[in-house]
Amino acid sequence: MSTQSLTHGTVPQRMARIRELMSREGIHALLVPSADPHLSEYLPGYWQGRQWLSGFHGSVGTLIVTADFAGVWADSRYWEQATKELAGSGIELVKLQPGQPGPLEWLGEQTPEGGVVAVDGAVMAVASARTLSSKLEARGARLRTDIDLLNEAWQDRPALPNQPIYQHLPPHATVSRAEKLVDLRKSLKEKGADWHFIATLDDIAWLFNLRGADVSFNPVFVSFALISQRQATLFVALSKVDAELRGILEHDGVTLRDYSEIAAALREVPVGDSLQVDPARVTAGLLNNLASGVKWVEGLNPTTLAKSRKSLADAEHIRQAMEQDGAALCEFFAWFEGAVGRQRITELTIDEHLTAARARRPGYVSLSFNTIAAFNANGAMPHYHATQAEHAVIEGDGLLLIDSGGQYLGGTTDITRMVPIGTPSDEQKRDCTRVLKGVIALSRAHFPKGILSPLLDAIARAPIWAQGVDYGHGTGHGVGYFLNVHEGPQVIAYQAAAAPQTAMQPGMITSIEPGTYRPGRWGVRIENLAMNREAGKTEFGEFLKFETLTLCPIDTRCLLPSLLTGEELQWLNDYHAQVRERLSPLLGGAALEWLQVRTAPV
Amino acid sequence: MSTQSLTHGTVPQRMARIRELMSREGIHALLVPSADPHLSEYLPGYWQGRQWLSGFHGSVGTLIVTADFAGVWADSRYWEQATKELAGSGIELVKLQPGQPGPLEWLGEQTPEGGVVAVDGAVMAVASARTLSSKLEARGARLRTDIDLLNEAWQDRPALPNQPIYQHLPPHATVSRAEKLVDLRKSLKEKGADWHFIATLDDIAWLFNLRGADVSFNPVFVSFALISQRQATLFVALSKVDAELRGILEHDGVTLRDYSEIAAALREVPVGDSLQVDPARVTAGLLNNLASGVKWVEGLNPTTLAKSRKSLADAEHIRQAMEQDGAALCEFFAWFEGAVGRQRITELTIDEHLTAARARRPGYVSLSFNTIAAFNANGAMPHYHATQAEHAVIEGDGLLLIDSGGQYLGGTTDITRMVPIGTPSDEQKRDCTRVLKGVIALSRAHFPKGILSPLLDAIARAPIWAQGVDYGHGTGHGVGYFLNVHEGPQVIAYQAAAAPQTAMQPGMITSIEPGTYRPGRWGVRIENLAMNREAGKTEFGEFLKFETLTLCPIDTRCLLPSLLTGEELQWLNDYHAQVRERLSPLLGGAALEWLQVRTAPV
Repeated sequence: MSTQSLTHGTVPQRMARIRELMSREGIHALLVPSADPHLSEYLPGYWQGRQWLSGFHGSVGTLIVTADFAGVWADSRYWEQATKELAGSGIELVKLQPGQPGPLEWLGEQTPEGGVVAVDGAVMAVASARTLSSKLEARGARLRTDIDLLNEAWQDRPALPNQPIYQHLPPHATVSRAEKLVDLRKSLKEKGADWHFIATLDDIAWLFNLRGADVSFNPVFVSFALISQRQATLFVALSKVDAELRGILEHDGVTLRDYSEIAAALREVPVGDSLQVDPARVTAGLLNNLASGVKWVEGLNPTTLAKSRKSLADAEHIRQAMEQDGAALCEFFAWFEGAVGRQRITELTIDEHLTAARARRPGYVSLSFNTIAAFNANGAMPHYHATQAEHAVIEGDGLLLIDSGGQYLGGTTDITRMVPIGTPSDEQKRDCTRVLKGVIALSRAHFPKGILSPLLDAIARAPIWAQGVDYGHGTGHGVGYFLNVHEGPQVIAYQAAAAPQTAMQPGMITSIEPGTYRPGRWGVRIENLAMNREAGKTEFGEFLKFETLTLCPIDTRCLLPSLLTGEELQWLNDYHAQVRERLSPLLGGAALEWLQVRTAPV
Repeated sequence: MSTQSLTHGTVPQRMARIRELMSREGIHALLVPSADPHLSEYLPGYWQGRQWLSGFHGSVGTLIVTADFAGVWADSRYWEQATKELAGSGIELVKLQPGQPGPLEWLGEQTPEGGVVAVDGAVMAVASARTLSSKLEARGARLRTDIDLLNEAWQDRPALPNQPIYQHLPPHATVSRAEKLVDLRKSLKEKGADWHFIATLDDIAWLFNLRGADVSFNPVFVSFALISQRQATLFVALSKVDAELRGILEHDGVTLRDYSEIAAALREVPVGDSLQVDPARVTAGLLNNLASGVKWVEGLNPTTLAKSRKSLADAEHIRQAMEQDGAALCEFFAWFEGAVGRQRITELTIDEHLTAARARRPGYVSLSFNTIAAFNANGAMPHYHATQAEHAVIEGDGLLLIDSGGQYLGGTTDITRMVPIGTPSDEQKRDCTRVLKGVIALSRAHFPKGILSPLLDAIARAPIWAQGVDYGHGTGHGVGYFLNVHEGPQVIAYQAAAAPQTAMQPGMITSIEPGTYRPGRWGVRIENLAMNREAGKTEFGEFLKFETLTLCPIDTRCLLPSLLTGEELQWLNDYHAQVRERLSPLLGGAALEWLQVRTAPV
């Protein structure tokens, strides 16, 4: 993502301007979340107002500005980055942690009676607006969602993205959009909903078997969808859809309307009809367009559960994509090990070479997120990204963490591996070994079908907790099928609410990525993707197990094998045998040789 | 608990009478929960209306009666028992399981528009009444809580219990009631509450350092408490408190009023004042007495968290109680192993001898729950209790499950052990070994201070799930200090909501009791109590670990040691070494010999 367009004026100048506008409007506090009307993870530049205003470029964080205070709330992944980027700006880093008030709680506690808090309703989820509004009302204060102060201050605001939309086609698309619409309508009928409004871009891309390139890394396009039993309307900038695709969509019963017409379309939903929405996944500003006589049916978008459950046909494509991705990694590592110590290699060179190796693979479309190549202390920042201005040279001793992934027509990958540089210390090896124990414990687990995924987290953490170590991020996030590398509804994280929709179902793909971060020293994370597979039905019910999808050696030079149990060593050797067997046919020369060495049994 | 007084009339006759009354009152459905005005686990006979009306004697279950349907909702612990007891009654067993509608959901789905559902408000938690009421209102039906139909039908309803109240004294009571009142008032002040109403008997017994014998197994007395910054009033049948105790309480600032005066006292709380209550732990019928101008401050009773956190001084007494309890068990087992096969031993004989062994120990007060001695198929019912009418003789081959516990002045015990009879099969041994693996995995765990306890459950279950096995009950419940054997707020159960109050804190005592139940064949459960102890503060935060409190050999003849890892064997041998060391001084003769044999290293 380019940050060129965000550099007009200094942060203190922008803040001063915003405070002028707040004063003019009688606003006590301005809330600027990291959000857009689609509640996406990756925001087009047009909606990167929090970055623009605060100068903190981490992807998740919430800014609050009052007359005499400004703070960015960020979770532990971003503390190091935010501390650096906010230094001297007059904006405080407020560390988001369990038991401490988050930004909405803070506003609920600090807003004076009669005070007004403003947020652009277009980018605030209905659920969050409700929570905040009720907190403020309890204090005699109120929430305004009808004003976008940023827009007035932000003179060089970027335009909305406008990349062409294309089809996700068979064989990679294994279910037609017509079938998906039939299933969705059946689900709406069961819920008693006449309409369904979708704002989340990956739900829309999945439903219509369409892809785009409007935001970084996620192959989605800026759009809304409104579905009824008779109509399916896709709201996009019409220039993104060529005549041929338009014809195909119309043939499949999908009408196109301009992106800007969604507000009008929502106003047209007849009074007395019911409309299904997920209040956590649509914004208050949009739903304010509904007539008050439209009944809301609230619940998870049916597409969110449906797209999380990859079919057996999807699984076949994903396995192939994993083989290609693993082969690309082997080629990269073979080059890297030959080059390190002989030529100048930086975290940025790693990104370039690894991306090039992926790009040579069939079916490759793009990266699935910004490569994290983080040497020693940089690895202690889980979401570190090297820049031209700040990056490390790979030299001396220590640990290199590489977290990367690709989008392929047949799947999305996300993998983290640790690479020893020179001679890692025993303490570093202990950290790596313990994290691997966590990976193995969860990868081997069987569990009841339908268990709420946050409840599985302790299995990965137990071997890490055993030494008084923990990590601030979740152990696992859902992963899309040539879609977002982060998707729901499941999440393996004790920090997450164990809500009913997080239930584990067959076909879901989740990352398994425990870690250990020692600020200023090093970071360790090992990550595979795993798919929920049936593990049989017994007298005690149906069980699931994980099929590890990711194929790439786990460098045993970072480990202290004496700390692994017999069962753990067995898992590691079995995994490496499978990696060798499946990647060998795709490799030759130095890469094949590297694979053979790095998959030797321990 | 005697069931003598419940046998007047047959279940169908009682049901017919209740349906007459329902018809007269225009009531569509009657809900009879297992509850009393104190929301206790063990109900005095006076409040055992569900048992009386349905004939199902399990301790937890909810009866719903309509004109043409009657059903008891019960969880998996009770399915076998309920199936037997409800046979021929015309009352269905409705199996409570995840994803299936519970009794309140059922009423919310089945009650016709305009229908009236009745429940005795005196025995329904405010939180449940709210949930049910809003479900009914959504259908245009309504909830009545102002009528007790049972009372009219139940001619031989038992009287309220009337056992004397006595003090829990130093050294066993380690904090005075005056200090506890100071702490409670501080907590109320922080919450901005002028008053606090407590209906839960163990909270009241703990707060005032008083004990009683009004219900089976829990050393509590039927009472309410109303506390303000100036007053502390205890509502009990005044005949239970002798003049001396009354004087002591008055000296400590505790006023006595008759049990029946609580409604009037609640009505007297001044309009404008605020009153703290836990809506899950007080009943709607009682709180309906509050003036509408009294502000509710809702939250967990402060005493519930305070009493869960045992002090270091408490811990010393508990360790001694565990030694006495373990010694009693050794004496019992030494007798049992000498007697089995030589004389007729039944499940009832076991209860008698084990209870007698405990009763000989210093500080013993009573059992802490009904002993479960369950041979083979009976063990598959987790809450089985042998009766004169139905019990097994211990003979042949198989597994005997003994789950028992005692109340001592210095602590409450709860232990389950498996005993091999004849030659247990390899399948039985595999089940025992796997369950032990679960016990060991959780017993060895370290975990972040403050983690929500339900999130730890997967650690115990992972080795059991690995073989496609699961169990329907929680892995761990909180245990009181010479108080209820089941207490909150923590609970290690993936079926439980991971609510903030379930956070693990130092000093909490929780059972660790995974199991395996094969209906009609056998059941396995191994249970120890463990206390949360500080495990040190690291750069990653504060950690806790478990101190296993329970001291009694785990019979290795039920195990397949080859299935245990080196670490697991080490834990078992270390545990047995500790058991031997601590129990030997309390034993002699056959019991000491038995201890030495049964704690030999594997």
